[in-house]
Amino acid sequence: MGTRTEDVRLAYKTWKQVQEYLNYDQTVIIPVGANEQHGPSCPVVTDTLLAEHLALEVGRRQGVLVGPTLPIGDSLIHLGFPGTIAFRPSTLMSVIKDYVTSLHKAGFRRFFVVNGHGDNKPPLQSAFSELGEELSEIRYFVHDFWDFPNFREILNDEFGDPNGGHADACDASLLMAIDPSLVNESLLTSEFPKVRYWISRDLVDDLYTKSGVIGSDQRLASKEVGKKLLEEAIQCYSQLLMELMEVKEPALS
Amino acid sequence: MGTRTEDVRLAYKTWKQVQEYLNYDQTVIIPVGANEQHGPSCPVVTDTLLAEHLALEVGRRQGVLVGPTLPIGDSLIHLGFPGTIAFRPSTLMSVIKDYVTSLHKAGFRRFFVVNGHGDNKPPLQSAFSELGEELSEIRYFVHDFWDFPNFREILNDEFGDPNGGHADACDASLLMAIDPSLVNESLLTSEFPKVRYWISRDLVDDLYTKSGVIGSDQRLASKEVGKKLLEEAIQCYSQLLMELMEVKEPALS
Amino acid sequence: MGTRTEDVRLAYKTWKQVQEYLNYDQTVIIPVGANEQHGPSCPVVTDTLLAEHLALEVGRRQGVLVGPTLPIGDSLIHLGFPGTIAFRPSTLMSVIKDYVTSLHKAGFRRFFVVNGHGDNKPPLQSAFSELGEELSEIRYFVHDFWDFPNFREILNDEFGDPNGGHADACDASLLMAIDPSLVNESLLTSEFPKVRYWISRDLVDDLYTKSGVIGSDQRLASKEVGKKLLEEAIQCYSQLLMELMEVKEPALS
Amino acid sequence: MGTRTEDVRLAYKTWKQVQEYLNYDQTVIIPVGANEQHGPSCPVVTDTLLAEHLALEVGRRQGVLVGPTLPIGDSLIHLGFPGTIAFRPSTLMSVIKDYVTSLHKAGFRRFFVVNGHGDNKPPLQSAFSELGEELSEIRYFVHDFWDFPNFREILNDEFGDPNGGHADACDASLLMAIDPSLVNESLLTSEFPKVRYWISRDLVDDLYTKSGVIGSDQRLASKEVGKKLLEEAIQCYSQLLMELMEVKEPALS
Amino acid sequence: MGTRTEDVRLAYKTWKQVQEYLNYDQTVIIPVGANEQHGPSCPVVTDTLLAEHLALEVGRRQGVLVGPTLPIGDSLIHLGFPGTIAFRPSTLMSVIKDYVTSLHKAGFRRFFVVNGHGDNKPPLQSAFSELGEELSEIRYFVHDFWDFPNFREILNDEFGDPNGGHADACDASLLMAIDPSLVNESLLTSEFPKVRYWISRDLVDDLYTKSGVIGSDQRLASKEVGKKLLEEAIQCYSQLLMELMEVKEPALS
Amino acid sequence: MGTRTEDVRLAYKTWKQVQEYLNYDQTVIIPVGANEQHGPSCPVVTDTLLAEHLALEVGRRQGVLVGPTLPIGDSLIHLGFPGTIAFRPSTLMSVIKDYVTSLHKAGFRRFFVVNGHGDNKPPLQSAFSELGEELSEIRYFVHDFWDFPNFREILNDEFGDPNGGHADACDASLLMAIDPSLVNESLLTSEFPKVRYWISRDLVDDLYTKSGVIGSDQRLASKEVGKKLLEEAIQCYSQLLMELMEVKEPALS
Repeated sequence: MGTRTEDVRLAYKTWKQVQEYLNYDQTVIIPVGANEQHGPSCPVVTDTLLAEHLALEVGRRQGVLVGPTLPIGDSLIHLGFPGTIAFRPSTLMSVIKDYVTSLHKAGFRRFFVVNGHGDNKPPLQSAFSELGEELSEIRYFVHDFWDFPNFREILNDEFGDPNGGHADACDASLLMAIDPSLVNESLLTSEFPKVRYWISRDLVDDLYTKSGVIGSDQRLASKEVGKKLLEEAIQCYSQLLMELMEVKEPALS
Repeated sequence: MGTRTEDVRLAYKTWKQVQEYLNYDQTVIIPVGANEQHGPSCPVVTDTLLAEHLALEVGRRQGVLVGPTLPIGDSLIHLGFPGTIAFRPSTLMSVIKDYVTSLHKAGFRRFFVVNGHGDNKPPLQSAFSELGEELSEIRYFVHDFWDFPNFREILNDEFGDPNGGHADACDASLLMAIDPSLVNESLLTSEFPKVRYWISRDLVDDLYTKSGVIGSDQRLASKEVGKKLLEEAIQCYSQLLMELMEVKEPALS
Repeated sequence: MGTRTEDVRLAYKTWKQVQEYLNYDQTVIIPVGANEQHGPSCPVVTDTLLAEHLALEVGRRQGVLVGPTLPIGDSLIHLGFPGTIAFRPSTLMSVIKDYVTSLHKAGFRRFFVVNGHGDNKPPLQSAFSELGEELSEIRYFVHDFWDFPNFREILNDEFGDPNGGHADACDASLLMAIDPSLVNESLLTSEFPKVRYWISRDLVDDLYTKSGVIGSDQRLASKEVGKKLLEEAIQCYSQLLMELMEVKEPALS
Repeated sequence: MGTRTEDVRLAYKTWKQVQEYLNYDQTVIIPVGANEQHGPSCPVVTDTLLAEHLALEVGRRQGVLVGPTLPIGDSLIHLGFPGTIAFRPSTLMSVIKDYVTSLHKAGFRRFFVVNGHGDNKPPLQSAFSELGEELSEIRYFVHDFWDFPNFREILNDEFGDPNGGHADACDASLLMAIDPSLVNESLLTSEFPKVRYWISRDLVDDLYTKSGVIGSDQRLASKEVGKKLLEEAIQCYSQLLMELMEVKEPALS
Repeated sequence: MGTRTEDVRLAYKTWKQVQEYLNYDQTVIIPVGANEQHGPSCPVVTDTLLAEHLALEVGRRQGVLVGPTLPIGDSLIHLGFPGTIAFRPSTLMSVIKDYVTSLHKAGFRRFFVVNGHGDNKPPLQSAFSELGEELSEIRYFVHDFWDFPNFREILNDEFGDPNGGHADACDASLLMAIDPSLVNESLLTSEFPKVRYWISRDLVDDLYTKSGVIGSDQRLASKEVGKKLLEEAIQCYSQLLMELMEVKEPALS
Repeated sequence: MGTRTEDVRLAYKTWKQVQEYLNYDQTVIIPVGANEQHGPSCPVVTDTLLAEHLALEVGRRQGVLVGPTLPIGDSLIHLGFPGTIAFRPSTLMSVIKDYVTSLHKAGFRRFFVVNGHGDNKPPLQSAFSELGEELSEIRYFVHDFWDFPNFREILNDEFGDPNGGHADACDASLLMAIDPSLVNESLLTSEFPKVRYWISRDLVDDLYTKSGVIGSDQRLASKEVGKKLLEEAIQCYSQLLMELMEVKEPALS
């Protein structure tokens, strides 16, 4: 694929170009997002947009193809908020299984999932567990960017909270860093849940959130922190991707 | 939503904006594409890109929200060509069922599917048949743009074939009209299948296609015809959408 | 199987007779019907009976075995009318997949579906799409008889409508041609839907039909037109079957 | 339905006739068969034909509607013999669940399954167990005719074996009683399995049968015994059906 | 495994010990129970405890490994009684299929199911029917202990009823024989159903039972009869197991 | 339930006792284990035994009922080691969904899962996500004991590794604390994987482990550390359980 500036989106290749790519690498990056409420200030596309942005930048730096972004995840808990579209976990499992099985037939063997939404992780891991039994020679990472220790350290330093929440200052900052027009800053707010345990959807309003924000003071968000977080996430993902590819230097750039 | 120039993408709204939209309209447009081989000259994103382009333009003209584009469809028959990613029909059914069920919970009742890939139609219709039993008060169209009589007439006039095929002159023309750089014109080719009946994937090479083109001389494609086809598709879809909305004039623009 | 007059029903063969048949042909005809309301004048068996009648006559003329008729299809939309029995599309998919997979294990490779009910087609095609990935060397047609251009031409000439509807003059005529006692002619009626888009079942009464007839004036039906339509359907199907068998002359008669 | 001679087949009623029937009775008989090898002398339709014959005769005598016969059951173990078509138990479960759920929506509450094939019983019972949780006020019997004590007594007296087997003297006798031309008497044979435990299909040839007959000397079959068995089965089923209907006299004849 | 006193529980072996066992035997015993109401005097663990007790004793006498006991079965009909936990039949099918498939991968080929709950049998048999198509060289018995003729004879002699019911004198006697403290004898009771046909759960109270006991006078139960029944069940199962292992003498004790 | 010494196992209650319990508490503890290889020194029951032990002790201290232990989990990755029995994630999801749905019908609303095996967590969480949409008013925790910070601290202090692995010094120590005879100390060993990413099962031998131990030096295990870890886990779980019950003091002891 030559240079970093080249398009790494698999979707924009012809089948012959993908065939050529497979001659020297069998790795693919898969961005998985969600279409769910992110409070009064951020669009429902937030998680999808973050996953795609990170995946493409990591792909560019390492010269690795990025598959089509999955725009919907497990957002069942948020269905009380209009605009949310949710896959049941069993649907998301079928989705990722068919996705990976298709690429496996063509020769892909290393799958690197950039996950933009926490509740996706259980069904994604469940799906890969089944794939690990059904397919041969596959290697994979499914990783949430907010789980990188360095990333959490920034969250802690900047927002005083390494864990974040939902539609939190971290999300808003990342969006601002990508495109400030995505966030309506005047509507940033703060809300914290009453309990820590998990609940059924009919209890969300009473126990979790009325605004859609859960466990964060969004008003701490800033474009500058967002830029720092983005770069950290990209570097951590890149490191992990190289580990999956078992090379220490970018293969193609 | 005010004016035609406003963003009609549901994904870029906040949940409160979707809530407001539902106060005066319960219609949503759903673009469904595919990630599959389109011969040596067109990218695998072709069907997705066409569905999304048409959906957004129709949505803009009628002031109707457009849900997130589904980028993968039933492309099982093309899995021999690298880069193709296919949902089994049962997976695509779960996908569209969860998608529509989510929106139904929020109050959407009219669903308008802009389908960019022929083999998606059976699972889409199958899913809506089940939804029609499970949900109340839903109304829907699932329509392929190449089935509009006026559209077929142009195909016939321009390419001498009202039926087209796969990765055909029609697809290439539409891509050129949207962005000429998407098509590598020097690789446009022509190939016709040996049989008309349907086959299992292991027979594709022998009976259908080696290049990926099926039943068309792509070299007839042109940007001009593409523009004509695009406009026809948009107008036909708009007409159908108004029928679904039971209004004769655009509601919002 | 010797002569045209011989029984072509697979169900009435012993396993050894089927084994012998497979020595010279691997084709089977599969009739798929429905058990659904057909208005006040026609029995719920209508679609099943038509599919079976056509399949057997085509099988006899071409010397091809006809598998057991599937008597139930996707009639979910009609469940408000007593006597209707419906398979969800996912059930019908499992049904046809198990049916074809069984015969494939024995050596059948060419499957010719005579479909008697429009809403069956999406699940049938969806099932065959999955089968095309799971089984090897299969070839198939899934065809509705009312889609043959010559057949539609008769509909147009006789009833002024090439498209027909549900429980229409076409259905009633075909039944009369097979056995006039199947139709209570005094109850033939006419009803047209208020809309063209598809709806959920709870809206059927208001938007589609109260009598069960949809989009047709059944009173135009006649035994004579029925006979003409039957013969046309049989000839068109026979032609298509020979194409699937890749022979131009009947193999066995 | 007036008299015994009237047609009791639900499939041959219009939806209005079924509606009227529901005004005074909510019972339906469901015949379930199989399409599977029955040795060198009997057709694969055997079980279906027996179930349908018994169901119709019982329905006639008691004035109860008989739903469409399900022509395929769980015959997985016989798939090594050409002509056998098998539903996996999970498919058969979906089939019977959709069937009963459809009729339940129309008002049917009492379901009487006349089962013609032993291996159908587990999936049929499994399906009804789930239906018993999903639907309200249903009552049902799922019964194999060879399990009636009086019926077994005849088997014992005539063939010296109360248990029978597969494609046994009982089956052949019943067929002869219905229509002697269904059985090729010159090919009747005898074969007994080497073991009693159940096995996977790849072991059938070695441990169970080469001819298709399992555990019986078919040559003992006769039309006379068949007639006796038929009448016994009809009377036992009728008795059971009345128990389900909680009446002691036929309701309608 | 040397001697009868050795632990035959597979769960308490290391993987290397299981590997060694497979060198000389490929048989495993699988106890399947239920967690369901057993009237006012017996615990919900009753069926599980009986299945496990029998399986372990049979395993000890024959030197055959016993897999982990499945503690939940199809108890849907009893869900009106608190403490009951039920698997739908389709879930139980997946459970036993995964269980057996896992052991098959390691080399097990002979599966002996000791079933402690009647309603488990249909889903267990359905699952094994599918396994018989999917796996190679498997042999199996799925047997309810109350179906052994000798066992039924004792029931008849002692309680005047060879068929028993649910939470019956047989169950209570067996529990007493294992551990008298498991049964609250002062609460033993008697209740008989009003009908013989099967029903949906909402009708259980009215037609079957209010106490949880169905079709038995529990008060006839005794520890002495329990001991007799236990020994009979163990001997019958042992005999059947040897048949499955195709040896006439215990292999290992 | 009176006192701490009373049996808290739901399975050993009668349905009337469970009914009484529901009058003052709607909480249940659910232990989930696994039946999988734990290296040459520990039995395959390890995870099940730990989950059950912890659940019962926590239940006793808080006076909360403990449901039947699920003895099998997602151990697909270990299927290369004999004795391992694995549920596919989709099976485990059905299992926990049916389990919780049953108890929900009886009135249970708070579910506390003590999970003994890491790979169970994704399917458990996926199942509860779906349950949260299907059931009302449920609250739940699904927690792995090795994730409690205090617990990890001990691991770090004692074994120099807060993360542990599979069949590690932590597992062995816990077993020793419960019953030293469960561990064959002479076979304790040490093995570390070559990579960190996840793989398909066919790669386990080469990249993960030959002994079954993954990422730990088991030889550091001791009964004393085990006792410390057990008590810590019990206390942490008890704290969490009280949070779920929204009381600060044990309700019943």
